[in-house]
Amino acid sequence: MLQQPVQSFDHARAFAQRTKVRVGIAADRFSGRATGDSDVISLNFGLPDEGLFPIPDLMESVSRAVHVRRALQYGGATGTARLSGMVADKCSQLCKVPISSEEVLITSGSSQAFDLISRLFLDPGDDVWVEEPTYFGALHGFSLNGATLRGFPMDEEGLLVDAVEQELKAREATGGAMPKLFYVIPNYHNPTGLTMSLERRKQLGELAMKYKFYVLEDDAYGELGFGATTIQPIKSIAPEFTLYISTFSKTIAPGFRLGYVVAPRSIIQMLRFVKAEGGTSGFAQEVMANLLETLDYDQHLRTVRATYRARRDAMLEALAEDSSVNWTWTEPEGGFFVWVTLPDGYQTSALWDYALRESVSFVGGDAFYVSGKGGNRMRLSFSYYPPNIIREGIQRLRCAVHAYADTL
Amino acid sequence: MLQQPVQSFDHARAFAQRTKVRVGIAADRFSGRATGDSDVISLNFGLPDEGLFPIPDLMESVSRAVHVRRALQYGGATGTARLSGMVADKCSQLCKVPISSEEVLITSGSSQAFDLISRLFLDPGDDVWVEEPTYFGALHGFSLNGATLRGFPMDEEGLLVDAVEQELKAREATGGAMPKLFYVIPNYHNPTGLTMSLERRKQLGELAMKYKFYVLEDDAYGELGFGATTIQPIKSIAPEFTLYISTFSKTIAPGFRLGYVVAPRSIIQMLRFVKAEGGTSGFAQEVMANLLETLDYDQHLRTVRATYRARRDAMLEALAEDSSVNWTWTEPEGGFFVWVTLPDGYQTSALWDYALRESVSFVGGDAFYVSGKGGNRMRLSFSYYPPNIIREGIQRLRCAVHAYADTL
Repeated sequence: MLQQPVQSFDHARAFAQRTKVRVGIAADRFSGRATGDSDVISLNFGLPDEGLFPIPDLMESVSRAVHVRRALQYGGATGTARLSGMVADKCSQLCKVPISSEEVLITSGSSQAFDLISRLFLDPGDDVWVEEPTYFGALHGFSLNGATLRGFPMDEEGLLVDAVEQELKAREATGGAMPKLFYVIPNYHNPTGLTMSLERRKQLGELAMKYKFYVLEDDAYGELGFGATTIQPIKSIAPEFTLYISTFSKTIAPGFRLGYVVAPRSIIQMLRFVKAEGGTSGFAQEVMANLLETLDYDQHLRTVRATYRARRDAMLEALAEDSSVNWTWTEPEGGFFVWVTLPDGYQTSALWDYALRESVSFVGGDAFYVSGKGGNRMRLSFSYYPPNIIREGIQRLRCAVHAYADTL
Repeated sequence: MLQQPVQSFDHARAFAQRTKVRVGIAADRFSGRATGDSDVISLNFGLPDEGLFPIPDLMESVSRAVHVRRALQYGGATGTARLSGMVADKCSQLCKVPISSEEVLITSGSSQAFDLISRLFLDPGDDVWVEEPTYFGALHGFSLNGATLRGFPMDEEGLLVDAVEQELKAREATGGAMPKLFYVIPNYHNPTGLTMSLERRKQLGELAMKYKFYVLEDDAYGELGFGATTIQPIKSIAPEFTLYISTFSKTIAPGFRLGYVVAPRSIIQMLRFVKAEGGTSGFAQEVMANLLETLDYDQHLRTVRATYRARRDAMLEALAEDSSVNWTWTEPEGGFFVWVTLPDGYQTSALWDYALRESVSFVGGDAFYVSGKGGNRMRLSFSYYPPNIIREGIQRLRCAVHAYADTL
């Protein structure tokens, strides 16, 4: 008998509507490793430097964890009480209010935190408001969960909360839909590197309490400040209406996929309900708890901050080095990113080919907008490479801009 | 100035409709650890025995993984090609057709695999058909993703595929909605322990190809057979229309949260798109790949199977030991579970209090049904305890049934 030819079925016919979404970028496309296999200086990846991972302490932590059989067992979404307790203590200090471990949920990276929060709060079409620009992975995640996105502008002090208040009032007056969530990155914002002022934080927290929406406060970079002071989180201003999320990926290592949400107890309980899975890795949690117990975390953070600070300095100096390219940029006080603006009419999507020819890469600005803006902007990451490579990268980028500009 | 009283807001007002779902049970409620803190013999938890975790090999694997800095970095949803390749090889052998690593997606436990598949295929209201009874975590997960569930009966040979065909024909004739997915656990089914016959597998695979729905084949227990032979997976019968999922949780250890999907390439690509996160732990994947490289897996499986087989034997013997309770039970050829049926009119929900008084627990049957059935049934797990404790557990359960029966 002859074999039947392999049936060629268009599986896409069966896919759900949500898969047609094309806002933002799936995190996996940008969390790919900078392999070192190529000569490209990848200023697009927001990767921590692997040289900063605390390997000796990790070694001890994993060795201890393997012998805790409980840690290798199913753990339940509740996670090991130990790590939740440590996170609660850390956040209590940060917020200057007592936070219990029942207000903490450990998640598989902060990406899972976004997702669980979206699933808990969003019916299809519900409004999620965001800063514009903002993290493309969050835009993608909200969209996959059916959100109607709306962006609000920023200035040097962060989100323009006046514009938000105006819209809230307008909607209240007309009976329009209120947002369910307002997603912000107050510290060392992705992609701009900007920090939201205390006044704006207070203003947004008060609006949340008044209009009953939730501030989704993403503090992924909060511990990576280069200056002496940090500004209090919105969580400490409007605790009942703030869902605070952060991660161990930037300060320890991404490979364990450990993030967390801090939120009112009744919300954490329901997040557990929608986290309908076998729980975030008990082994990873045990490793992290061991690590936080033995690592001199403050000393570790000092090293990490000093390293990234030197890289930021290198990038800013290189950008300023000659004025042959008419670009402007932000001056971040922490985090991983500098946000570069080219003259009106330039398109970073068209610059891309010239950049690759020079063996340098970036993320084009439009990925960070809800729609149609940011075409002349780009995000550059200074986290991954030592200062000399960063300088070389900016030099290459300058050459690429020249080559591109010649075609305009 | 006086402190404002803490605002008491009913957060549930803001939750999405999907959170009102009450079908099945969130996995976390049953993946909680059997703590050993109490004297209860927990026959409810489907936990592997921690004594079977390959600790020395794991020790070596984690030690090697810590020094692979790449493994601690963001990995992308694609994961390390190494583990995907190993899974592809394993599944090629099982299915007797070549499967490439591009047909494999590593997930955070098989629970994430369920979830991603639901999100990829299900618009609200779409039909998901299941065996009845079936795994409560799957029911919960499908429901959270808006599925309309329908259960089909089973007999000793597994799913009654004739009933499925009848319904498909009826819907075709009336233009009714076809199912998007058919969820089955062909090997050592959860909760019944039954195995689907080859004939039924062929029949279901052919229906999937004819009516263009996807068989979601959950093979979590597939490697835990107690006999000499195993039946080929539905994946090998209808490869284009089967999404095969499995896990390392039952055979190695759950704490790493590693599962996988094997599916046509175009489906894997889209699963990556909806897996909008930083990727399944690169560290855990590195550990597992190291382990599979060094562990004598066949020998390990022989030990694991022999251990669980002895426990199954102990449970079946204890159930048969005296006939004072009028219960019947299945005789599983592998896996973790025995399915017990009490006389009509008994309610295992009412038995629960009596069981706890005797310090023994089970999962009541109704959690495994889409609605309203199974009240006189219960799932007992034989995986976690040594034979003497299992015998004691069944003896306690018998006492509980007697005490309960006296009240009827």
